[in-house]
Amino acid sequence: MRCDVLAIGTELLLGQIVDTNSAWIGEQLATAGIDSYEHRKVGDNLPRMVATLREMLDQADAVIVCGGLGPTPDDVTREAIAEVMGVPLERREDLIEWIGNLFGGRGREMPANNLRQADVPVGGDIIDNPIGTAPGLLCQVGEKVVYAVPGVPYEMQLMVEQTVLPDLLARSGEKSAIVSRSLKTWGTSESGLAEMIAHRVEAQTNPSIAFLARGIEGIVVRVTAKARTREEAEALIAPEEAALRHILGELVFGVDDETMEFVVLRSLEARGWTLGVAESLTGGLIGGRIANVAGASRTFRGTIGCYATEVKRTVLGVTAEHVVSAEAAKQMAVGAQRVLGADVGIAVTGVAGPDEQDDQPVGTVWFGLALPGIEPEAVSNRLPGDRERVRQFSTISLMNLIRQRLAVLPG
Amino acid sequence: MRCDVLAIGTELLLGQIVDTNSAWIGEQLATAGIDSYEHRKVGDNLPRMVATLREMLDQADAVIVCGGLGPTPDDVTREAIAEVMGVPLERREDLIEWIGNLFGGRGREMPANNLRQADVPVGGDIIDNPIGTAPGLLCQVGEKVVYAVPGVPYEMQLMVEQTVLPDLLARSGEKSAIVSRSLKTWGTSESGLAEMIAHRVEAQTNPSIAFLARGIEGIVVRVTAKARTREEAEALIAPEEAALRHILGELVFGVDDETMEFVVLRSLEARGWTLGVAESLTGGLIGGRIANVAGASRTFRGTIGCYATEVKRTVLGVTAEHVVSAEAAKQMAVGAQRVLGADVGIAVTGVAGPDEQDDQPVGTVWFGLALPGIEPEAVSNRLPGDRERVRQFSTISLMNLIRQRLAVLPG
Repeated sequence: MRCDVLAIGTELLLGQIVDTNSAWIGEQLATAGIDSYEHRKVGDNLPRMVATLREMLDQADAVIVCGGLGPTPDDVTREAIAEVMGVPLERREDLIEWIGNLFGGRGREMPANNLRQADVPVGGDIIDNPIGTAPGLLCQVGEKVVYAVPGVPYEMQLMVEQTVLPDLLARSGEKSAIVSRSLKTWGTSESGLAEMIAHRVEAQTNPSIAFLARGIEGIVVRVTAKARTREEAEALIAPEEAALRHILGELVFGVDDETMEFVVLRSLEARGWTLGVAESLTGGLIGGRIANVAGASRTFRGTIGCYATEVKRTVLGVTAEHVVSAEAAKQMAVGAQRVLGADVGIAVTGVAGPDEQDDQPVGTVWFGLALPGIEPEAVSNRLPGDRERVRQFSTISLMNLIRQRLAVLPG
Repeated sequence: MRCDVLAIGTELLLGQIVDTNSAWIGEQLATAGIDSYEHRKVGDNLPRMVATLREMLDQADAVIVCGGLGPTPDDVTREAIAEVMGVPLERREDLIEWIGNLFGGRGREMPANNLRQADVPVGGDIIDNPIGTAPGLLCQVGEKVVYAVPGVPYEMQLMVEQTVLPDLLARSGEKSAIVSRSLKTWGTSESGLAEMIAHRVEAQTNPSIAFLARGIEGIVVRVTAKARTREEAEALIAPEEAALRHILGELVFGVDDETMEFVVLRSLEARGWTLGVAESLTGGLIGGRIANVAGASRTFRGTIGCYATEVKRTVLGVTAEHVVSAEAAKQMAVGAQRVLGADVGIAVTGVAGPDEQDDQPVGTVWFGLALPGIEPEAVSNRLPGDRERVRQFSTISLMNLIRQRLAVLPG
């Protein structure tokens, strides 16, 4: 089964938006064992869209079209699919009602433009959109099938997961299960990691092992097994996962969707400890990420984003002369404990750039850690990259540090 | 002149890397006034690469191929171009020497694999690579031209800027420029916005008007003009921009890359006011976004991410019985002023979900605003979506509120 991907949008060709949707869809197809040999991008141009879609349906069994389902005159995916199918569009009453209700539920009138989102090629089916106004489409074109999903990533992902992938798998006939387990790691480079497990990567065909460098989400080692049933696939994965964990040790901080923050909060909750953060250059980013974890309120007290130097002194009681220093980092962590009423205080202070500070180069950071009954500690790091990267990497590095400290405490 | 883009690499189809190169190249082509109507991605597969390149050269005057110029057996771009040209590859002695010197200069042996990077289709030219080992290619195919550049972004960008674009412009003869101006809006739906300016969208061909929904970055109204020179294009844009601004009014918060935070900080800085934030459900997200603006330190004091209810009381002095209320929001904003030593305090408190709080449904938020010399104010909102969306939308909505208040103050 071959399924190619067509992304719609002139802004994609003009480089105003990077096409991340195709990459995400490609990854899902690969994980599901469906071949994908070509991705294309075309603009909001009906004749070109029709020609491209026809060519792609000549080559592939299925095409996923992403984008162009909005309510504006630019959005011509529905028209293009209808033309390729050789049918007219029909405006469905039940969809008009459904879209109207979405607006009504938010206390708004439905703009007339949105009526276009109730248009469906005759003979085509819709794909439910759980959160947006644009239904997707599932349309047979001879032996082939076209799926249309919105360009809004969150809506698209839900619809691909809930409808498109299951439909593709059912059509592919192959009764097989593909299961992946992703080990999330932090602490070494991609090539360093590759060297540690090169022998296992080369030895394995099923399960196979892939690396995915995910920026501040870590380096993912993904183990994928294919078998007749899910249970058999999982049984193939288990020994490989164990072998990899044995080699990688504490570089592994979580599995699958677990974020570093999730893992840290779980570890703290197990001890009945609460967490407070003091952060300068990150401005509140760390607190924001922690608060994103469902159930964070059981553990997270809050953050003091002490961006101005003076605020470090007045709110957290920092007396150190230089605010980018071990002393300041420790005082900030202890200050977070005190001011936020937290058992554990963590802190970061540093030089994000673009200017140096106190003659310290851009990327210099000091992390502070204050745990119950233990002397406060400071650790320094030199982070690469520009302002944005220094701030983002500070966030994940500090969380990894507390994770490591908690992992070696007794009990 | 039409130039399309072909990105090479199986990892792109598998979604292991997002194709940012095509977007960057597309943006350069647009700025240079060169039309680009289709981008494609294919894997490291010679027959498919050849077929795709042939199809693309049928449609476009030029194709930029990005990737597949490395030294490994996967890298078959040179072979593909030679096959499309109908010629063999010749291994150039001068290139062998040049590549060998690159390795020698780093104190290394040249691996045998790298000899492949000295292969050039007979009749083709090379494009100098100022920093990597892979020369690019510039090959005539009948009336058409193929440019091959590496996939490594930094190398590719230099070679596109220094060689490919000038060559395309020379060939196009047409000295034309495409200029875009993006108006960023917040406050109404995409279709509501479309209705406001539908008459102008329909009337215009050059400049043209497009909508881009950018999630929490707002809805962008993009005006694009094409003319002989950049100055003429800008002269076409100006009256259209003015007409749109007249219609959209204060829905427009910025232009081009300006974020809501940037605009707010600029507005505060103009008055010499500093800013402090108190945020509960967002946990620090608002502070994190503000700190991301270069030069924020001139204005931003910090944020109190008061996630736990108790912290709102102990740190900010909130006495309101219910912490999701107008009273609490105002007290938090005033608390932010006081604790952070800021002229302006802004606050948000609400119910992110998944659970209700104090019988208030998920998505209920109260924003608090405390400006110098003005009675503190609270505004409520009902935000759609899940926990993540409620938090993200709280962030942008609060910033928009303070933007609007500042815009109507005297002086």
